[in-house]
Amino acid sequence: MRIKINKTRVALIQMSMEEEVSKNLKKAKQMVIDAAKDKAKIICLPEMYKSLYFCQKEDHKFFKIAEKLDGESFSEFSKISKKYKIIIIVPIFEKRANGLYHNSLIVINDRGELEGFYRKMHIPDDPLYYEKFYFTPGDTGFKAFKTKFGNIGTLICWDQWYPEAARITSLKGAEILFYPTAIGWHPSEKDKYGESQRESWITIQRSHAIANGVYVASVNRVGFERIDQNSDGIIFWGSSFICNPQGKILVKASEDKEEILVADLDFSKTDIFRTHWPFLRDRRIDAYNEITKRFID
Amino acid sequence: MRIKINKTRVALIQMSMEEEVSKNLKKAKQMVIDAAKDKAKIICLPEMYKSLYFCQKEDHKFFKIAEKLDGESFSEFSKISKKYKIIIIVPIFEKRANGLYHNSLIVINDRGELEGFYRKMHIPDDPLYYEKFYFTPGDTGFKAFKTKFGNIGTLICWDQWYPEAARITSLKGAEILFYPTAIGWHPSEKDKYGESQRESWITIQRSHAIANGVYVASVNRVGFERIDQNSDGIIFWGSSFICNPQGKILVKASEDKEEILVADLDFSKTDIFRTHWPFLRDRRIDAYNEITKRFID
Repeated sequence: MRIKINKTRVALIQMSMEEEVSKNLKKAKQMVIDAAKDKAKIICLPEMYKSLYFCQKEDHKFFKIAEKLDGESFSEFSKISKKYKIIIIVPIFEKRANGLYHNSLIVINDRGELEGFYRKMHIPDDPLYYEKFYFTPGDTGFKAFKTKFGNIGTLICWDQWYPEAARITSLKGAEILFYPTAIGWHPSEKDKYGESQRESWITIQRSHAIANGVYVASVNRVGFERIDQNSDGIIFWGSSFICNPQGKILVKASEDKEEILVADLDFSKTDIFRTHWPFLRDRRIDAYNEITKRFID
Repeated sequence: MRIKINKTRVALIQMSMEEEVSKNLKKAKQMVIDAAKDKAKIICLPEMYKSLYFCQKEDHKFFKIAEKLDGESFSEFSKISKKYKIIIIVPIFEKRANGLYHNSLIVINDRGELEGFYRKMHIPDDPLYYEKFYFTPGDTGFKAFKTKFGNIGTLICWDQWYPEAARITSLKGAEILFYPTAIGWHPSEKDKYGESQRESWITIQRSHAIANGVYVASVNRVGFERIDQNSDGIIFWGSSFICNPQGKILVKASEDKEEILVADLDFSKTDIFRTHWPFLRDRRIDAYNEITKRFID
C-alpha cells in the first residue's frame, strides 16, 4: 500500500539589497533559479526586492525606480517561471499612472503568465518608514489565487499586523499566506527592544495561521541600509519563516544572512487542521459588522 | 520631582473545582478576598468557576446548576466587591428562561452593583467539550465596561480564537481583555500534541494584545476532571497569564497548581504602546465588509 503524499515545496528568498537596481534583479533571478532547481514550486521574493528600502527618506528621485505591472520584473521572472513551470510572487514598486504609485506584487503562474496582482492595502508611516509619501493605499481588496500548486494568498508587510486582512484573504480560499516584508531595527533600539519587536512580528503572523487554519510564509530582507545620512539607518532582521496552520514554525532563517528558505507543505491536510481546531465553523458573522468602524465611541 | 505612576493591580484566580458547588463557591470567595487584601482592584474568576466542567457529557441533570444573572454568584460576590471596593468578573452558567441557557459572566463594580454582563458569543463543540448542547450563543454582542479602575473587555474561552471578538471589544474602548477559560488536554494527546496545543492557545491571545494595543489576561482552571466515566477525562492546563500590549508575557501561572496570579498594569501607557505600533491608525475600514461572510466562494 502506498500512502498518498501531496507535498509542495515552497521557497522564500531572503536577500540583501544594494543601490544598483540591476544587481538586485540579477541576484534575485539567480536565487529564484537555484530554488527552482531545488524543486521549489512556489517562490516568493521580499518586498521591493529590486531596491534599497528607500522609504527611509522622502525624496522624489526614488519614484523613477517604479515600474508597470507588466514591466521589467514581470518580463524577467516570466521567463524563469515558464522555463521551470513554477509560481513566482514578485513584489514591485508599481507606477500605475503619473503621480499614482503603489507598493504591489505580481503573481506569475507556471506558464509565465500574469496570474494577477495585489496592491498593499495597509500603508505604514513611522520614523524611517515613510511609506505614505510614496504609496497610495491599494484598491485591489484582499486577494487569493488558485494556482496549479496551491491556493495562495498574498499580503505585504504592514498588512501582517491586521487580522482582518488575513481573515478575508483566507475566506477567499487561500491555504497559505505570503508576506513579503521589509522590517528591521533602529540601531539605537536594537539592544533594548529588538528581541521584543521581532517576537511581536512573529507572533502576530503565527496567529493568522492559527485563526484561519492556513500556512504562513513570511520573507524579509537582511542587511544594514542607510539612505538618509542624517539617520542611523535600519538593520533589517531577516528571520523569514514558514509556519503550519497551528502556528508551529517549520523553518526559520537567520537574522543576517542571505538564504533560500525551503519547506515541503501538504495542503491536503488543511481540512484536517481545520476540523481539529474548528474555528471557521463557529464564526459569529451576524455580530461582526462593527469591525468596519474606526472606533466605537 | 515625583514621577506619576498609575498602576492597577489585576488578579486572576487559577483554581481547581470539585463536584460540590458550594465548596467551589467558598473557595472562589476566599481566593478573591485574598487577592483583594493583596490590593488587587480587578479580579477575574475562571469560566464556570462554580462547577466541574460538566460539558464533557450531555446530561440534562446539569442544567440545575444554572443561575440567574442576579443569582447566588452575584449576591455573594457583590458583598465582597462592596466591602473591598473592587471590580470582580464572575463567569456563571446562566439560566435566562426555561429552556434557554447561556455561558455568561457578570461584572460587579466597586459599589457592589451589577455593572453589566456578557454572554459567550462563540460556542465550541468538540469531543468532551459538548457546549452546543448546553449554551445558546450569546446575543449581547461584544462588551467593554468603563470601571473605576480601567476600561475592561470581557470574553469567554472559545471567543479567544476569534480576532474579530478581540477587535470589536477593543474598538469599544477596552484596554484590557479578560478571558475566563476552561481548556485542557485529552490525556491520550498530551504527550504528542500537548505543548503545541497550549502554545497555539497562548499565541492567539498574545496576538490580540498586539493587534489591538491592549493588555490580555487569561485565566484557566487546573486539575483533572472526568465527568463521563467512559472517557479519559480532561487535564486542565492552567497556564493563566497576563501579557502587555506588545504580547509580552508579564506573569504566567503553573500548569497544575491553584494560584492567584497578580500583575500591576499601567493603563496610562496604552497611548504610548499604540502610537509606537500605530495599527489602529491604518485600518482599512473601507475594505473589511466581507468579514461578515461565512466564506467567499
